[in-house]
Amino acid sequence: MAASAGTLRSMSPSTPFLSVDLERMQANIARTADAATARGLALRPHAKTHKCIEIGRMQLAAGAVGLTVATVGEAEVFAAAGLDDLFIAYPLWVDADRAARLSHLAAVGANVAIGVDSVEGVRRLTRGGLAGRVAVRVEIDAGHHRSGCDPTAGADVAIAAARAGFDVEGVFAFPGHAYAPGARERAALDEAQALTVAVATMHDAGIAPRVVSGGSTPSFDAALAIDSPVTELRPGVGVLGDAQQWELGSMPATDLALTCHATVVSHAGGRLVLDAGSKVLGADRPAWATGHGRLLDHPDARIVLLSEHHAVVDMGDEALPALGSIVRVVPNHVCTAVNLVDELAVHHHGTDAQPAARWRVAARGRNS
Amino acid sequence: MAASAGTLRSMSPSTPFLSVDLERMQANIARTADAATARGLALRPHAKTHKCIEIGRMQLAAGAVGLTVATVGEAEVFAAAGLDDLFIAYPLWVDADRAARLSHLAAVGANVAIGVDSVEGVRRLTRGGLAGRVAVRVEIDAGHHRSGCDPTAGADVAIAAARAGFDVEGVFAFPGHAYAPGARERAALDEAQALTVAVATMHDAGIAPRVVSGGSTPSFDAALAIDSPVTELRPGVGVLGDAQQWELGSMPATDLALTCHATVVSHAGGRLVLDAGSKVLGADRPAWATGHGRLLDHPDARIVLLSEHHAVVDMGDEALPALGSIVRVVPNHVCTAVNLVDELAVHHHGTDAQPAARWRVAARGRNS
Repeated sequence: MAASAGTLRSMSPSTPFLSVDLERMQANIARTADAATARGLALRPHAKTHKCIEIGRMQLAAGAVGLTVATVGEAEVFAAAGLDDLFIAYPLWVDADRAARLSHLAAVGANVAIGVDSVEGVRRLTRGGLAGRVAVRVEIDAGHHRSGCDPTAGADVAIAAARAGFDVEGVFAFPGHAYAPGARERAALDEAQALTVAVATMHDAGIAPRVVSGGSTPSFDAALAIDSPVTELRPGVGVLGDAQQWELGSMPATDLALTCHATVVSHAGGRLVLDAGSKVLGADRPAWATGHGRLLDHPDARIVLLSEHHAVVDMGDEALPALGSIVRVVPNHVCTAVNLVDELAVHHHGTDAQPAARWRVAARGRNS
Repeated sequence: MAASAGTLRSMSPSTPFLSVDLERMQANIARTADAATARGLALRPHAKTHKCIEIGRMQLAAGAVGLTVATVGEAEVFAAAGLDDLFIAYPLWVDADRAARLSHLAAVGANVAIGVDSVEGVRRLTRGGLAGRVAVRVEIDAGHHRSGCDPTAGADVAIAAARAGFDVEGVFAFPGHAYAPGARERAALDEAQALTVAVATMHDAGIAPRVVSGGSTPSFDAALAIDSPVTELRPGVGVLGDAQQWELGSMPATDLALTCHATVVSHAGGRLVLDAGSKVLGADRPAWATGHGRLLDHPDARIVLLSEHHAVVDMGDEALPALGSIVRVVPNHVCTAVNLVDELAVHHHGTDAQPAARWRVAARGRNS
């Protein structure tokens, strides 16, 4: 007996839920891998975006040399699934617990590098007994002004690490200041310049970096187009995309592969009220964003108010979709949205009824 | 053998983690309950803030008449633990799945009321076979302009529900526009006025509301101080508090009972970099907030940059706490922070070593 459309619909989860457009995501993975390969660059996608074993496997199958993660907990989740060539791109402060966990990862054969941006941080790693067990990469501030050494100061940290017996693989940067309108090219140039200085300073100190790692999704295309010492790129968001990338111009709407399916619950005040709020979309809202996310199929609509379980949408001149309609919301920041759910519904492109699969967000909540 | 301080420290979770100050939370519960009782008002705290069975039980023990929740999923979690007098303060659009789940709650004896703000919404409830199984309360827009009927239009929805066989308990509002500097009293007055009109219109239509429910944490004190038809209040945040309440002036820093313990991982750029980011603090940041959260023990410090695993703090004239120090961050919005973790560490006031308990965030992620 053929299932009716109504039956199929009822097999989708109740809204709000996050859905991956499988074919779009596969195309994003392939395009990113091909672009890096064409320039002879290694690709190490940041898995904090998706936190899913299935997606990490696809990225590796497409040619990624390994994965980037943000925490020891994320490294544990991916290593346990056999995805064990990992760079923790973070200046970890290693306490006894983290030292034991990193030692265990090394003991079971995982190939782990971790970030460091201070001599004190190197001392903690040393005290944790991690020399010879994990490799290190020195973080360089390329203009985002978050963590990271001044480019001329990275060599001091590298020397300290090398003397303590660590394999110093090289340097890394994150040009996060690419997250502003018109800033993508400038951020890529800043990164290239900062890493050039850092590499030269390390060479002067007698250390030859094998890995010079950079990149973000908004700066990715620009980083491929310029002269740069970069040997590896670490884009995260681009595998799924989000409203920030759409609005920055780094991904067109037709590449966006993750949406939140939401139901129209009210027409109060002549606006659309959806059952998706900050507890499934995330509350990220940079000052330059046009709202709290976007509607994929209504590009002129704006989410003007977001609370925990409501998104209020101004539809402009467009008629309001009927009460009970399901609309697709693109979160502003996919990494924080994915971290809010236990699983992703996976749909084939153009279908939104029965999911083709459900993937567990295996590293959800692994903040430490 | 007595445990050393070092041993105790190591028994705390690795940072970042959320910690509840037990005595402060208990004082918040008692103060809120006593204030409502003194005015003869029912208290139905919003459990979306804490999502914990243990905290819900304490609120009921202190005199709450039941709990408020935002979703069917939250109702299921609390009902399963026996906390089954529940109001889902949301204009649910009831699909087949939600209708079946609400019917099941009624079948196992839970006493559930749900929000409705349209005649179409009543029709969905009716079609779902819920008349006689759940009670309804009509949502009134009191000036926040999210969901909810115009005060003069609520009676139409109430009449439709009564004719369909539902027990119409009354009306409710959420004065969310209290979330702005200097707006608390105004929002409480707006709510009282909107509910007065709604109640009068319903009386004219021959319906006598038994419950007139309002309230939020910032408007709570003002709502107790004014003439109002309100019979019940539903504060949520006040049980734990957050940086928004601190900055709005509705809770002093000395009442704040939830912090994120975070480690200083870097002094890059002469600022403090903490290992707590938006994936544990949440990204809520109203335009009027001074930053992305506050440091409980450094009131002049400002979190000037927040990413997923970094908070960058400008300490002003204060010396930087040492690398490896643990500081306590008050999230801007406690409801979204709690929803990011699987459990809360519970500490006695003034201690931060071995947690006295760990409470599961039982309704985490229950968005539907």
